[in-house]
Amino acid sequence: MSDRDISFIFDLDGTLVDSVYQHVAAWHQALQALGIELAVWRIHRRVGMSGGLFTEILLREIGREFTPALVDELQTRHAEAYSGMAKWVRPLPGAILLLEHLTRERIPWAIATSGKLSSAKYSLQTLGVAASTVVITRDNVRRAKPDPDLFVTAASHLGSDIESAVIVGDSVWDMLAARRARGLGVGLLSGGYGQDELERAGAIRVYEDPADLLRHIDEIGGRA
Amino acid sequence: MSDRDISFIFDLDGTLVDSVYQHVAAWHQALQALGIELAVWRIHRRVGMSGGLFTEILLREIGREFTPALVDELQTRHAEAYSGMAKWVRPLPGAILLLEHLTRERIPWAIATSGKLSSAKYSLQTLGVAASTVVITRDNVRRAKPDPDLFVTAASHLGSDIESAVIVGDSVWDMLAARRARGLGVGLLSGGYGQDELERAGAIRVYEDPADLLRHIDEIGGRA
Repeated sequence: MSDRDISFIFDLDGTLVDSVYQHVAAWHQALQALGIELAVWRIHRRVGMSGGLFTEILLREIGREFTPALVDELQTRHAEAYSGMAKWVRPLPGAILLLEHLTRERIPWAIATSGKLSSAKYSLQTLGVAASTVVITRDNVRRAKPDPDLFVTAASHLGSDIESAVIVGDSVWDMLAARRARGLGVGLLSGGYGQDELERAGAIRVYEDPADLLRHIDEIGGRA
Repeated sequence: MSDRDISFIFDLDGTLVDSVYQHVAAWHQALQALGIELAVWRIHRRVGMSGGLFTEILLREIGREFTPALVDELQTRHAEAYSGMAKWVRPLPGAILLLEHLTRERIPWAIATSGKLSSAKYSLQTLGVAASTVVITRDNVRRAKPDPDLFVTAASHLGSDIESAVIVGDSVWDMLAARRARGLGVGLLSGGYGQDELERAGAIRVYEDPADLLRHIDEIGGRA
């Protein structure tokens, strides 16, 4: 493979849009509404993975029985709470410029998110992505992150080799799914994880946010 | 000094009560209301330091002029937004048991927070601390964290030597202030920082939350 085979696959929340903390608050409210007390930092460290897996793992950790009905109820309440917070969500610094740069350089790129399209639509609107953009959501795959399906499906839609894909995300679940997909994970601090956590999960490089990545894009193959 | 000289000084938000993410959201809303766009993770990584210093540093980082009036306005708006979110705040797991343990063992302990009493009162209420508890707030010192004043003043009120004090906090600003005070910093992950960040800021030990600290309290001198 050469640099010409390169493609970029982006996580959405915390990577292109500044929405992680709103998702965390929405999960916290959904859990409290059902009488499930869970410290917020534990929610933060799970966000980004599949919503179903997320709720099952959290409920198991606190020793609470979970049924498919409870998991469904939590996801519905999270979606409701999040829709009320979406007005605070903005693109992260440099996100729109970074995507414009890749488009101009004819480097294929896609978005792959563990969220459903019903939640992701707010973020996609605020980014203003073209209708032709490859966007893979929870609705398109059998398993979300940390399984590799979202990234593999995104590369396939781009007609790109996953092994030459740069997979950009803010959570350890992105980095883990990138390794399981055999792509190259690149971490961003903009979702609130520490640099060390992302590196230990397999990030080949960590930047602050999309603006910082764009300034250093030659390091990871996105040549101007 | 011997173990009998030991005392514990606790930060409040993110250390004893689960309130960091609400403070982050309140700052975010205050900044957006004044047209200041700042990514939420950058706010998260500054919470815990003096509110005045916090706002000055953030405004300087984004190249925005700040006046004492703007800093005041931000702090007022933060306090208003936070008061609306305080209903979501709970003690962190093990916090009340940990304080009861120290009281029972006659180990002196105090609370020292960068917040003003007007904001801290919600957290103190949810913890149910006795009126006789030594609580040092922003109102009692000239400079808050990362300056050492809060911790030094707390040790002084306890009649304890700061050099044998165990200073427990969730942020790098707590660890930095602990070192500047010549106390022993112990970190908790419950404010959402990574373990590595706390260790690099000088934590001699890092636990998940107050419950985890209590399980391992012999490691840091709080003998049963």
